[in-house]
Formats: sequence, C-alpha cells, structure tokens
Amino acid sequence: MMGKPGPDRSSQGVASNVAPGPLSGLRILELGHFVAAPFCTRLLADIGAEVIKIEPLSGDPVRNWGEQLDGQSLWWSVHARNKKSVALNLKSSAAIEIVLDIARACDVLAENFRPGHLARLGLADEVLRAANPNLVIAHISGFGQTGPYRDRAAFGVIGEAMGGLRYLTNHEQESSATPPVRTGISIGDSLAGLYAAFGILAELWQREHSPGRRPVGRVDVALTEAVLSLMEGMLPEYGALGKIRRPSGSRIPTAAPSSAYRSADGKWIVIAANSDALFLTFMRLIGKPELANDPRYATNPARVENVDSLDRIIEAWTSTLVSEALVAMLSEVGIPCTRIYDASDCSSDVQFAARGMVREIVDPLLGSVLHPGIVPYHPESPGDVRWPGPALGQHTDEVLGELLKLSPAEISELRGQGAIS
Amino acid sequence: MMGKPGPDRSSQGVASNVAPGPLSGLRILELGHFVAAPFCTRLLADIGAEVIKIEPLSGDPVRNWGEQLDGQSLWWSVHARNKKSVALNLKSSAAIEIVLDIARACDVLAENFRPGHLARLGLADEVLRAANPNLVIAHISGFGQTGPYRDRAAFGVIGEAMGGLRYLTNHEQESSATPPVRTGISIGDSLAGLYAAFGILAELWQREHSPGRRPVGRVDVALTEAVLSLMEGMLPEYGALGKIRRPSGSRIPTAAPSSAYRSADGKWIVIAANSDALFLTFMRLIGKPELANDPRYATNPARVENVDSLDRIIEAWTSTLVSEALVAMLSEVGIPCTRIYDASDCSSDVQFAARGMVREIVDPLLGSVLHPGIVPYHPESPGDVRWPGPALGQHTDEVLGELLKLSPAEISELRGQGAIS
Repeated sequence: MMGKPGPDRSSQGVASNVAPGPLSGLRILELGHFVAAPFCTRLLADIGAEVIKIEPLSGDPVRNWGEQLDGQSLWWSVHARNKKSVALNLKSSAAIEIVLDIARACDVLAENFRPGHLARLGLADEVLRAANPNLVIAHISGFGQTGPYRDRAAFGVIGEAMGGLRYLTNHEQESSATPPVRTGISIGDSLAGLYAAFGILAELWQREHSPGRRPVGRVDVALTEAVLSLMEGMLPEYGALGKIRRPSGSRIPTAAPSSAYRSADGKWIVIAANSDALFLTFMRLIGKPELANDPRYATNPARVENVDSLDRIIEAWTSTLVSEALVAMLSEVGIPCTRIYDASDCSSDVQFAARGMVREIVDPLLGSVLHPGIVPYHPESPGDVRWPGPALGQHTDEVLGELLKLSPAEISELRGQGAIS
Repeated sequence: MMGKPGPDRSSQGVASNVAPGPLSGLRILELGHFVAAPFCTRLLADIGAEVIKIEPLSGDPVRNWGEQLDGQSLWWSVHARNKKSVALNLKSSAAIEIVLDIARACDVLAENFRPGHLARLGLADEVLRAANPNLVIAHISGFGQTGPYRDRAAFGVIGEAMGGLRYLTNHEQESSATPPVRTGISIGDSLAGLYAAFGILAELWQREHSPGRRPVGRVDVALTEAVLSLMEGMLPEYGALGKIRRPSGSRIPTAAPSSAYRSADGKWIVIAANSDALFLTFMRLIGKPELANDPRYATNPARVENVDSLDRIIEAWTSTLVSEALVAMLSEVGIPCTRIYDASDCSSDVQFAARGMVREIVDPLLGSVLHPGIVPYHPESPGDVRWPGPALGQHTDEVLGELLKLSPAEISELRGQGAIS
C-alpha cells in the first residue's frame, strides 16, 4: 500500500546516465558501511557526484536493516541511491589493487572503518596518497584518528551522548527519574556524514585555489565532535558561569510561550509565540488580550518565570479545538505553529510535495518507493534520484570494465578467484 | 569560575591576520540573524573563509540570547567568532549601495531573512547577480523560497516538528501521554546551516569546473527539508508498508541491548552491546554467560522481542556500580558505552582535550571563554579561532576603508547620515 499521496507529488524514477547537480564531474570512492560514510556519499551523489561504493561480498549490513519488503531493506533504497555497487573481498590482494586503481581515478575517498583498519588491509593514507597525490581522504570514526580513545568502538548513540546532545533530550526533571530519549534516528552518524561532505568540498576548493601550496589534505571527522560543535552556548556558559545546561522538555528554557500543546483530537501542536508582538496576537486570538499587559506575562522574562501558569492557560484553549482548526487559526494570524508530523503527515504535506521533497521512485528491487528529495536544493541545477540503492555488485563489471579497462577475461578470472562478485 | 579544566586543554586565543584552513582566500557576505545563516558562516569561517557579517544598528538579536556575563552573551562569543561585524542601517539607500559593493568583492552571500525581504530592500537575487555575476547566493528559510508555505514564519522548533524528528524524541508510549521533547538545541537551524555550507561549496566547485556552462547557481535550504533528509527509512517504510515510525524512548527499536541504564551514583550510562559477539562479552562480564545461549536472548530478533526483561537484568547489574567503574569495565572488554555527558563532562573529557575540541579563548569582551574546537578537523590545515564574536560594528571602518577604499571623510559622512555605525 502507498498511504495517501500528496496532491502534487513529483513523479520521478527513470535512471539517467547524465548526472545532474553541481557536483557533476566529481568522482568519489566510498569504503563505507553502516551510516556515517554512506550518508556522506549519499549527499554528494544526490547533487551529482559519481560515487563508487565498495562492498564486501556479504554486502553492507544496512542491506538488512529496518523494515523489509520481499527480503529487501526499504532504507537501503534511499541510503545507497545514486551509487555504484562494486563487490570486493578486501582480504584478497587482487581486490586491494583494484581499490588502488579506482582511487587513482577518483577525486575523493570517504571511509568509516575503525582507525587503522584500512592500513592493516594495505590501504594506509600514505599508500593511497602515493597512488594518487591529489586524492582527498576523508575519515569518519567515533572519536577521530588521534587521541587516547581513537581505538574505541562507537556508534551514533555514543557520539550523541558524549557530544552533550543526549543529556538534553529529556523532560525537565531530576536527572534520575527517566532516561533521556534518543532523537529517534542515528543523528550522530548523519551529522558526522554531513560534516565530512562539507570538509571534502573544502579540501577540493583548497586543491583548486592553492595548487602546490601544500599537499592535498585529509578530513578527520569524529561523531562526538560533530555533535559537540552544535551545542550553542553550552561550553562558554559552563566555563564562565559554571552553569550546566539542563533538559527543558518540550519548552525552550529562555523563551515563552514555545512548547507542544495538546489538541482536542489528541495531537501535539507546536506553538512558538515567544516575541511580545506574537504573544499579543496570540492572546487576542484566544480571547484574552488583557494577558499581554498582565505583569506576569507582558515580557519574555516574565513569561519564562510564569511559564507553568501560562502553558495551562494555552492548553485550556488548545484542548478544545482539533489540530486542523488550531493550525489554520494560528497560521492565519502569522503565529509559527504546526502539528507534530509523523511519517504519514510528512508524506502528504503540500509544501514538501510542491518542492519535490517527497517523491515516488521506481525501485527494481521493491517497486514504487517513497524517497525524500534532494537537499540542499540548487534551483539552477537540482540533483535527482537517478536510481535507488543498487543490488550488491550491480556495477562491478561496469566499473572494472569501463573505468579500469579490464577485459571480460580478466574480470572472469578475478571472479573465479573470489576477489570480486 | 572556570569549572575543572581538562588535563591537556589547548590554549589558544591570540587573534591572527592570517586565516588558516582550507577555505583561506574565500570571502563571504552574511546577511544573517538568529541561528541558521550565522551558523552556516561560522562553519565556513572556522576553516578559513573571511566572513563579513552585516548587522543592523541594533545588532543581531543573538547578542542578547542565553546566559550573559557583564551584559555580553556567552553564546555570541562562539556563534560569531572569526567574523567581521559591519553595522549598517538597511533602510538607508547608501547602506544598500555598500552591501552591493561588498557583494562585488565576495564569492558568496548567505542570508536567512523571510523570503522576499531582501528584494523589498533592493537586494533581489537579480540585483545581486547584476552586481556580481559570479556570486553564489544561499538562502535559508523555514520552508524554502517557493511553494505554498514560503511566506510563513518558522523557527527551528517548527522545522524539527514538520521534518519528522520531533515526533520521535519521546518515550515509547501512547501519543497523548507526554509531549515529545526538544532535542535541547535549535537543531533544525543548525542542520539547515550545515546543509547550506555544503551547498555553497558545491556551487563553488561547479563554478570552477564548468565555467560558462551555466550561470553561477543559488542554494535554497529549508529548515523542514534539512530535517526530513535525515529521517533514514521513515518515508520508504511508510510508503511501502504503511508503517509509521514511532518513538522508542532510550532504546533502538530494531537492536538490543542498546539503551541508557542507571548507575549506583544516579547517572545514565549508554551501553550498546547489540551484536551477538558484544552481547556474549557483555553477559560474561556480568556473570551470566548462559544468557547468550538462552533462546530468549541468543539472537538480535529474540533480544528485541524480550527487551523489557533483558533491560531489567542489565539494570540490576548497572545499578550496583558507580558510573566510573561501569564505563571502565565495559570499555576494557570493548563494549561501546559512555556516561551521558553534561557540559561539565564535555569540558573535562581527555579525548576532546587531546584533539583541541575544548579550548580556552581570550575574549576581549568576556575574559577567558570555553569554545568548542574546529569541526571538521583538517589535519594538514586545521582552522582556528582567530578571534571571538566581535563587538557590534567592530570592523565597519576596516571593511569600508580597506575593502571598499572609502576615505575617512566618506566613512564619517555615512556615519553622520546614520547609514553605518
């Protein structure tokens, strides 16, 4: 089944050989698995880069993650879209030579093995750099390529917890009551992937603008650090004042009213009326304009001080109206608000549809599949979903034949040795 | 007070005129306020770009956000670091001419006003493009520059709620029990800023590699879309199976054990032992190796099915040990784990210290301030904190004099007219 389709949903899906998008012409070698490096290369491929993904003969584990349809992962259709899958046995020296040959033809290598793993396989940075002095090498790992924790295992949840984000995703309370929740996605991994994609393009800019000024550089992204870098005033406020930033539930600790309020139909509505002008508009809407002049609520500091009573007044109003009416009334007067969207809401939103941000893709392995669109949107050169996540080794012959100029007999021999599949 | 300093914390802080980092030589004009566009340009400035930030004569509102020291925002020290502040009154036509002159000398413009606002000021894309045909223009907004919601106001909380993230940051429960929490930061804004920084560099790559093939492009990032793009299998799983991804509290819905467990000293410890090998190691550590062969727990699907009883067994063990001992014992045997870090823990972590990720900066407005380090880390060309967030208009004279070659008399006249400050 398809859920209810949005009225203007873009229809896409026919694979094309022309890569649209600003990175058209850029070639990337991915030695990634799980989330972080593959997410990095999805972003690059979405806006036009050619990504050659090396997979072990057993495939990237994400092929088996999440909900399946006919034994195929639905997440994979998005996570590996626009990439070429080359299946290699990296324990074979012939396969390592193939990786080096591909690296010679690429601008970038992105990987997220445990630090030192590629070196043990014969693919140390120096070896890769000797093969291709212009190769930008991007490493993604839990803690970075240096330092006392470099060899520790990490997952997204560890990066989120050490970077300071997880501590805050909780209700306002004593710390021992209930555990802070996950954000619901592996956001430490995706943040690291985003930072790596940014760092890769920065190195490429340097390569073009200062040729010869220094060797082409590397990028070394840690999950923990990707998270820490977003933490706003957390570090300076602690350092100067000893203040530890605390979880604040569904509210913003320094602005009110801004929270999630219950509607009559049991939905949660985010309302952000936390400027004096918006607050006055809001109080007029709910028929209590006098509260905008009430000393308990007239200014943001006063509203923050009295947020419990204020939020009770607001919820007494929201709980009498269904979510659709609430959003319509609030939007009409310009107050930022929304129902908290679940998957169904996202898929039927008219704005996402109008911008191609929810689209149907024909997946040869799965049939019609809903994909998120291409972000960031480049109006003059939007990327596209050229094809969904490929079958394992789908592009082995193409890459070895067309890019590395191996003959069919040579490819057959490698396959016979178990070096490729 | 300073909190407890980490043993190897890097000491930095002297402003330098040489911009280190891979983007050295790139010049950016920021017409931003609040979080998204200023976060985008912080990332670019951190790795070497020159950022000229235009502020109204009243200053960016973030100058007054969060905790203050002597009337100065601590967050500002980080948020505006490495940028030049030029204070202009954009209602003055002379100030608009100055913006256009700066745009002529820049590679990039980044802005996050409501769509259409700059055009009303006389700074429409076509006007900017006429002034500088090679200018990459990056727009950040709540919903994007097109579509039925383009004119709606939005904040980070709206982007997070409509992109599908907020729905998931909750405990596993009936949807009407307690509201989903914020992540604790304006993550919708910072994600949009990250995507914009990535998109800007992609356009610059295109500009260098396909000169004349098409006009230099724009980037159009929506908060909602930046969030939606991270949502893993949410859309395809809904489209194909009608499955709505639900919040799962502190657990991962498809892998066990992976959650936050209470320690004897009342801390939360994240433990991720969700592979068969890690689970066996873990059960040996807690003295229950037989559970690794117990049909209720032997495989990941069985552990997910019986996660309530499994988590009770684990917490019966963790609650007998203090957090420091737990982390030491688990790390010793290679099980990914950590105490959930608050600001104090982040600031004293030895790995962050070893990698320069927590550093003291001398801020002329604030004294010694803790800053997060530069992410992504480029080992051959790391960026630096050249200076902390500047005073309002600190660089007005420098930019107008050195870059635009205005004479002191001309600058004085503009100041007399109220066009600059």
